[in-house]
Parts: sequence; structure tokens; C-alpha cells
Amino acid sequence: MTPEQLLPYIASVFNEMPFNKLIGLQVTRFDEEVAEVRFDWSAQLVGNPLQQILHGGVIASVLDVAGGLMAVSSALGRVSQVAPEQLHERFGKMSTIDIRTDYLRPGRGQQFTATARVIRAGNKVAVCRMELHNEQGIHIALGTGTYLVG
Amino acid sequence: MTPEQLLPYIASVFNEMPFNKLIGLQVTRFDEEVAEVRFDWSAQLVGNPLQQILHGGVIASVLDVAGGLMAVSSALGRVSQVAPEQLHERFGKMSTIDIRTDYLRPGRGQQFTATARVIRAGNKVAVCRMELHNEQGIHIALGTGTYLVG
Amino acid sequence: MTPEQLLPYIASVFNEMPFNKLIGLQVTRFDEEVAEVRFDWSAQLVGNPLQQILHGGVIASVLDVAGGLMAVSSALGRVSQVAPEQLHERFGKMSTIDIRTDYLRPGRGQQFTATARVIRAGNKVAVCRMELHNEQGIHIALGTGTYLVG
Amino acid sequence: MTPEQLLPYIASVFNEMPFNKLIGLQVTRFDEEVAEVRFDWSAQLVGNPLQQILHGGVIASVLDVAGGLMAVSSALGRVSQVAPEQLHERFGKMSTIDIRTDYLRPGRGQQFTATARVIRAGNKVAVCRMELHNEQGIHIALGTGTYLVG
Repeated sequence: MTPEQLLPYIASVFNEMPFNKLIGLQVTRFDEEVAEVRFDWSAQLVGNPLQQILHGGVIASVLDVAGGLMAVSSALGRVSQVAPEQLHERFGKMSTIDIRTDYLRPGRGQQFTATARVIRAGNKVAVCRMELHNEQGIHIALGTGTYLVG
Repeated sequence: MTPEQLLPYIASVFNEMPFNKLIGLQVTRFDEEVAEVRFDWSAQLVGNPLQQILHGGVIASVLDVAGGLMAVSSALGRVSQVAPEQLHERFGKMSTIDIRTDYLRPGRGQQFTATARVIRAGNKVAVCRMELHNEQGIHIALGTGTYLVG
Repeated sequence: MTPEQLLPYIASVFNEMPFNKLIGLQVTRFDEEVAEVRFDWSAQLVGNPLQQILHGGVIASVLDVAGGLMAVSSALGRVSQVAPEQLHERFGKMSTIDIRTDYLRPGRGQQFTATARVIRAGNKVAVCRMELHNEQGIHIALGTGTYLVG
Repeated sequence: MTPEQLLPYIASVFNEMPFNKLIGLQVTRFDEEVAEVRFDWSAQLVGNPLQQILHGGVIASVLDVAGGLMAVSSALGRVSQVAPEQLHERFGKMSTIDIRTDYLRPGRGQQFTATARVIRAGNKVAVCRMELHNEQGIHIALGTGTYLVG
């Protein structure tokens, strides 16, 4: 698999993860700079029904997914050529170590976009910063995630 | 509403939250010491399908729910008598400020139990510590959450 | 005390804090957008002597100081006129609730600058993001702090 | 160096770190279960002088030191015999990745004790939980630290 094939392949793996499908996540952009994950408002994603705002767990989930994408990209980006079987093996060893989510404003909107950027790209550990905005550009949440990548 | 009625009422509000129902969360214990939230393994909660382990977002969600329960309990516990309309108003002002989740072991098992305890019970802010175990007692994750309560 | 007098006064309070003096911190910029705190390399700030890099605690300290400055500024900024005795009372109630520090690169350099910006400015709680760079612009650490302000 | 010599040696390295000496930290217990680090009240460790309480940075520092001790112990504990030159090399690669500190109560007291326990002991990453109490057993702060160990 060449580097050009790698990112679309990783995006498709994330899109197919059962829980990502349950929430309705879609990887809408994914390159060496930024990962972008979107989902639409849905009644089943609500926390407090009186307020009709997103459940905090949904927000934490999408931030983790966006950060995880960039962490995987950061780790595999240095590889010029990866065999598919190697990829599976390396994927299996990658995981979130810890994540902090800061809830800034109520999760109101029609469509939500999480973005992630790598701020530490190590051989073993990657750190990413993530943000969640709605379709009006309101900044809803941010996150910092530490990922095991090697 | 008397204090005796309060905790079961809060638990029912959490059980009815749409996203909590989507994941299958149930409040199974809730007193002044500890909140306990359970859910069963389900294929739709999987992250990486190769490994068949819980998605990190599911773990973050249930830890936040358990912590939120104890934060609400901590804030309302000092009130001897609360009118239902007051309760709604106070509920509406309570929210997670930030949460840290540490993933310790892969999320494997049949049934998962999150527990939460209050470690700072303030008028404005409560801090809770949460843990997730599976039915074999394996410690899967832990969390620390800061909640706005007044 | 007018708003024009307020920020320099707050800066002087921080500069005079005993532990800030011990480390050698100086508030070098402080307006409604950003707080900037500097300190010079010093042998007594070293952690591991084999590596001659800053102790992690020094980095966490300066990030907390920069974030605390902006949190105080955010809370007092809405007040048009504050009597000095009020200021002391409000100061006494402000405190760091929690802080996350991410160590990105070894703390090497001659002079270090921490900057802080407010990302959530509430009546009760403020959240700030902080960064530490050395004199060459190397990004050494970042932090996210939650502060009780009212 | 045998395992019996290892822990006292690591403790002495920490006791000799310049910044630890500046604060007055002493490793008072260190075995495979727990690390304990103490320091006495001192006027130069004060943050807000009106309140005469410990600076948050002092608290973050001592929690990080206690956690770092246990992380090192966790990583080296599996080695039956370590040559001193190897030890230096491995030490040099160990570092704090990130740390969260929760401030629970004002830092008042005569003597303060930080304790740390390992909650994730991996080949590459260790996670520790830390607590700070004063001489009266008042729980002042807690922390969660992620450490690179291999």
C-alpha cells in the first residue's frame, strides 16, 4: 500500500467502526495536517432532553476519533510502503492512553465538525489537540489526547 | 420532593436520557456514597472490529454519566426539600466542565460497571473519580471529572 | 481602582508571590487578550542533572501562573470599578480547580515564555490554554487549566 | 546493581535533583507498592501571600515527582540486574508525558506527604495516581500522570 492509498484506507476503517456508525460519524477530510470528522444532529445523541443538547459522551467520542485518526496518520506517515498485514498488526497496537475533554458551550446545532492536529509526533507516543464546532462556527468543546502509536 | 424521593428521581432522569438509552446504560445503584451505572456488551459499541473491544467513546460516556450522577447528588444532597420546578432549573445549570479518561486495559467483557465517588463537594464545583470494571473485576479505565453544580 | 489600573496591579501581585519569586517569574505582558510570563534558565530549576533540562514542576508552575492571570483578568474584566478591599476578597476566592500539562519537548533554553489565553469565560469558571516556548520559539509544553473565578 | 540496591539508588537520584532540593523534597518511602515524598512548610513555597497557602505549582511538582518515582520503579522492576551505565541510559529516556492535577483543598499545614501508586504498568507507558495530604491527613490534591518508560 502506497502512502497515497494509506490515508483513504485508514479513513474507511474509521468510518466502518460500529460505534462510529451508530453515532453517524464520517471522516470528511484527512491529510497530513488535519483530520476532520462530521456528524449530524440526531435526537438519539441528546443528553438532557429538557435542553436538547448533545450528550457529553458523544462529544468526547468524536474528539477521540479525530485525534486517533491523526495519531495513526502521524505514526504511519513515516513509513514509505506498508504491507496490509503489517498495517493490521500496527493498528492493533495503537490505542488512546488518555484524553481530556473541555466542554465550552452547550452542544447545539445541525451539524458538528471535529478537527484534530498533531502536536507531538513521537515513535511511541503522539499527542493531538482536537476542537468541536457546529455549522455556525460556535466552538463547543476541545480536547487533548495522548495516543500509543508504536 | 423529599430527599428519599430525590435520588430515584435523578436516576430515572439519567436512565431516560436518549444517548444513555442508545448505549444501554442503567443506573443500578445510587446513594450518597457511590453511583453505579451498568451496560451489557453489544456489537454496536465496538471500536476496532478486528479486536472486538469497546470504543473509547463508550467508556468516556459511561464514566461521565456516573460522575455526573454523583455531582448532581452532591449538589442536591444539602437541600432538605426541593420543589420539582426548582429541580429542573438546577438540573439545567449543571454540566460537565472537563473530564480526563485513562484507558488502562482493552474493553473486553460481557457486562461493564462504572462507579463514581465525590472527592470535592463544593457549592459551585464538584470533582468525582470514576472507574470502569468488567464482570470479572478487570479494571478497564478510570476518569476524573469536574462538574459545575451551582 | 479603574480598569486601567487593574491589570498592572494584578501583575504586581503575581510578581510578588513568594514561589514565583523563587523561580524567577516575571509578568512581561498582560492585557485582555493574553498573559505572558517569563523566566530565565537557572541551575536550580533543573530536574534530571544528567540532561540539564527544566524540572517538569517548573513548567507546570509557570503554565498555571499564566493561566491564573488570564482567569483573574477574565473575571475582573467585566467590573468597571473595583474597590481595593473588594479586590482582595474576590482574589481570595479565586483558585485553580484542575490543570493538565502536556510535556512536548525537553525544557532546554536560555529564556522561557509562557502565554495564556481564555477559552471559556464564565461567571463561575474560566478555562485557559497555555503554552511554553523557549527563546528560539521551540514549543516545550502546553496546558489546559480550569479556574474558579466567582 | 541488584534489585535491592536499585530503589535506594533511584531515591537518591531524585533527592539530588536541583529543583527537588530547592523545594525541600525528600523520598521517605519507596518500594514496589508506593512512593512517598515529603516536604515541610516553608514561606518561599507560598502562592497568594494573603492566604498563606502552598503555590499550586509546588503541589503539581511534588505529585509529578512521586508519580515519576513509581513509573521508574515500575519500568525497572522487571529487570533482574541492571548495569549502572544502562540505568543512566534508560533514565534519560524516561519522562512525564502528561499530568492532571486536581486541587481539592487549600494547601495549609506543617508537613506535606505525596504518595503515588502505579495503575498501568506497561513496557512503554506507565500511569500513576498521586495524592497529597498534610500532617493532619487532610486531602489537599490528587493527580494522574502518564509516563514514558521504555
